[in-house]
Order: sequence, then C-alpha cells, then structure tokens
Amino acid sequence: MSKDASTTYDVVAIGNAIVDVLSKTNDDFLGFNSINKGTMTLIEADQAETLYAKMGPGMEMSGGSAANTIAAIASFGGKTGYIGKIANDQLGSVFRHDIRAMGVTFDTPPLDSGAPTARCLILITPDAQRTMCTYLGACVWISPTDLDEEMIRNAKVTYLEGYLFDRTRAKQAFKKAGEIARAAGRKTALTLSDPFCVERHRDEFRDLVKNNVNILFANEAEILSLYRAKNFDEAVYQVRQECEIGVLTRSAQGSVIVTKDEMIEIKAAPVHRVVDTTGAGDLYAAGFLYGYTNDMPLEKCGELGALAAAEIISHIGARPQTNLSELIRTHAIAAKA
Amino acid sequence: MSKDASTTYDVVAIGNAIVDVLSKTNDDFLGFNSINKGTMTLIEADQAETLYAKMGPGMEMSGGSAANTIAAIASFGGKTGYIGKIANDQLGSVFRHDIRAMGVTFDTPPLDSGAPTARCLILITPDAQRTMCTYLGACVWISPTDLDEEMIRNAKVTYLEGYLFDRTRAKQAFKKAGEIARAAGRKTALTLSDPFCVERHRDEFRDLVKNNVNILFANEAEILSLYRAKNFDEAVYQVRQECEIGVLTRSAQGSVIVTKDEMIEIKAAPVHRVVDTTGAGDLYAAGFLYGYTNDMPLEKCGELGALAAAEIISHIGARPQTNLSELIRTHAIAAKA
Repeated sequence: MSKDASTTYDVVAIGNAIVDVLSKTNDDFLGFNSINKGTMTLIEADQAETLYAKMGPGMEMSGGSAANTIAAIASFGGKTGYIGKIANDQLGSVFRHDIRAMGVTFDTPPLDSGAPTARCLILITPDAQRTMCTYLGACVWISPTDLDEEMIRNAKVTYLEGYLFDRTRAKQAFKKAGEIARAAGRKTALTLSDPFCVERHRDEFRDLVKNNVNILFANEAEILSLYRAKNFDEAVYQVRQECEIGVLTRSAQGSVIVTKDEMIEIKAAPVHRVVDTTGAGDLYAAGFLYGYTNDMPLEKCGELGALAAAEIISHIGARPQTNLSELIRTHAIAAKA
Repeated sequence: MSKDASTTYDVVAIGNAIVDVLSKTNDDFLGFNSINKGTMTLIEADQAETLYAKMGPGMEMSGGSAANTIAAIASFGGKTGYIGKIANDQLGSVFRHDIRAMGVTFDTPPLDSGAPTARCLILITPDAQRTMCTYLGACVWISPTDLDEEMIRNAKVTYLEGYLFDRTRAKQAFKKAGEIARAAGRKTALTLSDPFCVERHRDEFRDLVKNNVNILFANEAEILSLYRAKNFDEAVYQVRQECEIGVLTRSAQGSVIVTKDEMIEIKAAPVHRVVDTTGAGDLYAAGFLYGYTNDMPLEKCGELGALAAAEIISHIGARPQTNLSELIRTHAIAAKA
C-alpha cells in the first residue's frame, strides 16, 4: 500500500447520492406508520410525500452511506473521490457543495430532467436509533457510463455501497467499478449496508465477497444474514474462509477485524451521550480505510474507525462536525497505537 | 386580552420566509471575505453563489426571524399563523413543511416563477456568534395582496419583522398588516431585527414605534441605534415615552421590560454551553408573546422569553428542538412565577 507517483486517491467511493432529512420522533410514530425501526426501507415518490407530510420539522444534511464515509476520510486528511448521481436541483446543489467543501473530488454529471435528487427521511427516536425511509430519485439513473474509470484506476481502494444493488443500472455500475479496480491491481471494499438489503441480494453478495472483495464491512445483523448464521462466531468463521479482511461492527460492544491469520477485537470509543446513531457504520468504515490506505496496522485502523463512529453518534447527522485529523491528534492513545 | 369566540389566533407573524444554511467557520474566514461579524448583510444571487462555494459543508434548516418566533410560539402551545413568500421549489417545500409541522397555519401562495426561495448563509464562529448573509430571493415578491386579512383581524397580536422594510413591496405589506390589525382593535408588535436594518430605516421605524406599535422588541445595539442614544439608560427613557411596552434584550445580561409605569429586569436563563446564538432574539420574542397573549404578567412573559432563548442557543439552528410547552412544565420556577 505504499504511495507511488501514479496513486492519486486513497479511496474512491461509489454510492447513492442522498440528502438526509433528519427529524426527531417517537416509537409510536413508527408503529402507526408501520415502519421497521432501525432499518432502511425503500419508498416511492408518493410514499415519500405522504410520510414527509406527517413528519415533524426536519433538518437537511448531505448523506448517503458511501458519501458519508468518503467525506469523513477527507476529514481525516485522505485524498478522496466520489461517484454518485444527483439531479440538477436545489438538493443536488446542496449535496455537491457539501461533499466538495470537504475536499472530495465529485464530478459525476447530474441528471438533467426527470427524478429529483434522492432523499432519505431519517426518523430519530429518543433512544438515538435512526430509522430510514429512502426515496432514490435520481440515484436510480446512475449507470456504468457515469464511472470515472481513471479515478478508479488511481485509487488504492474502491469502496462500494451494498445499497447500489437495489437497482439494476446501479448494480451494473457497481460491478464494473469493481472490475476496473481489480484490473488495475487495486483493492475493493464493500459494505453490506443493511440486513434487509442483504436479504434481497444474499446470493450475489456471497459470490462477490468470495471472489471480488478484499475488505468487507458489516454489522452483526448483516453478517448473520449474509451467512444465515446461527450466531456471531459462526459468521466470523465464514468470513475468515472467504474474505481477505472482514471488519465486523457490533455497536456498543465494539468491533472485530478478522483475516485468515488474525482476529483483533477493538473496543468502542467512549461517548458522553449518544444523540443519533445515523452514520455510525459509515464513519467506522472511514476511520478504518483512512488507516488502511495509510499503511497502519489493522488494530490502529479499527481504533480510528471506533473514534470516528464515536464522533458521529454524539450529534445529529452523518457528516463529521469535527475535523477528524485534529481528533486523531487529541486522542494520543489511538495515534500512538 | 381575554379569549372570545372571534379570536382564532394568539399571534400572526409576517416576515421573510427563509431557509438557513448553517455552517461552522472561523474569524479568519469572515475577515478574508469582509463580512461584518454578528450582523445580517443582504447579498445578491451571485454573491450568494460565490460565498456558498467558499463555505464549508452546511446544514439546512427553516429560518426567517418572524417565522422562528411563530414556530416557537406554536411549540409553547399558542395558536399561530404566518405570512411570508416562498418560491415553488425544493427549499420552499422545506420551509412550508417545517412551519406547518409545528402547527402553524401558513397558506401564502408561493411565487411560481422567477426568484428561488430565500436563503440565509449563517456562519457560526467558535465563540457561538452567528453572522448572516441573506439572499432574499422570492421574499422580495411579497405584496399587500398576499396578506390574509381575516387571519390578521383574528389575531390578538400581529408581529412584524423589521427586515421586511428592506424592500418596498414588503414594506407596503408590513404597513397594511399593521393597519388591518389596528382597525380590528388588535395589538401590533415589531422587532427591529438588526442594527444595520435600523440604520437603513431609522426615521420610518421611529414614526412607526411612536404611532403604530404596541410592543417593541429590540436588542441593545438596535435600540441605541434607533434613538442614537449615548447609553442604554437614555434609550430606555426614550422607549418609555414612545411605546406601550418595550422589550429590550441584552444577551447574557438578561432583559428589561418597560412601560410608562413599570421597569422589570429579567435575568438570562442558565445555559450549559452556548453553541449557536442564531435565533436568540426570535425565541425571546416567542416566549414573551406566548405569555402576553395568555394573559400572564409581564415578568412571567420575560421569564418565558429568557427560557426559550436559552433553549435555542444550546444547539445549532433557530427552531426549537424541545417541545417548549414541556420546557415550561419542567421549569417550575418560571411556571409558578
């Protein structure tokens, strides 16, 4: 992973370009509207309108799982690029501004007509859990021709979001990006995104993980679903057989990084008060990938992941409010590990 | 102020309907861009584009001074209406959704073509001060015909935002609203909005305050500017001569409520940590007006103002994140005063 002249990017991410609408609610609201707490549900335009009309006042912030990860890697000081489809509208401008303002290269041409920029209605319950309803809008129109092949070839790691599998064209773009990266001798990373997303695409994900993914990110529910495993240990065993590096997060119980030869347990970083868990997994992946692309040992990568996740759950929204490179400096333990 | 059958609204507010774009920055950024810290500057569309491109990532939230006030009165449990001009675009939908979700009646027809919904670029420095650059967009197109006269006639108080004076048509709407309210035997309230706004319209504001305003809201800089007073005491003397009720806020030093016969000092409510002062004056006005329209003594009105201001400066954004009616209940001192 050492730097050479041809390497321009540490990480390039491909994902659904989404603006989040964050709103506080309670469990009753989820119940009345039959929304599955803690998960991500895809909704259509009319459902989004209906749900939005019922929701309380919101706060709009750029989101999107892989986009959150890439923005955070940039905040750590990594060199990053992003590929995703916005529309030529106000929310699209917000998304583009915010990701570029973090220092991320983002030049995917916007959709000029048709569907608006995607939005994710995020309902935050008093227990700080986030429940997401996503209207994909313009995201659906990403296609293999939107890929900046040169950017992917020049990235140490190409990071792919499992959510892209939910639409055919996006899945094609996803697969092509992986092929370009591998042909260039680069690494690919995948996040499984959501247990229901895994349910929808289990066989294809398993095939991908086995043959085309170097680093797999998953939380406990996702990895159990992927392998239909009875318990976490069984899932860990499977990951170690099939994948170069498995990065498994377990919320407050920390995380486990596994390879064929190693199994490293990482504690969760302390948080004064958990306010909103939106983006916890995305930020963990950011810390890990920043460490990984900067030749740090796996344990250190995990600690940076835990640190970034702790930052994001201490406030509303999935983009860091702290300069993460400064956060490393103030956390001497992590920095010296 | 007792309730009767014909009274539908406690307060109706008329103001610039704006979506805020809040972003953390530092003093150097303000200096480099020649922005006057702590104030509100009007900017044109191209200036807004240029500044936005330079700014860090943002967070979009509904704003607008009088709209913040009316949303907070609704959160206290007051019956409220709002009149302001949005465009028929995504940010306009955000504004409409958020204010309606608070329970505020808002039916001003949106502008169908031309300027977009107004936005206020709010730069928050590490000292929690907010500095605002406003592109008025669709706001400028509010006109006297946009007024819901029935709503104004049925409101105990019509609350007017000084910022409206910055554009001719809006000023006409402002004046007409005041006339309708007075003809119906209702009260009118005015906030001076900003010291530079007072500079721009001093003579007209003085005339208004003397002849057509029952309750005047101002902070120290604004009231000093209005009367070109050498010190606060001199300004207080002037207010008492000219206005039925003067409500003068002084940040951490609390506030003073004055009438011809009374002068009541109110302490600022304690705040654990001041995060962002955006909306402090707007929320103070909300607490005061909620108390006033519910027949509370002036001291209690001031305490509710201080309580609401303390809530808003403890987090980012100018809309309450707490149900203010619950906040009254948890603050037994204020509730029993």
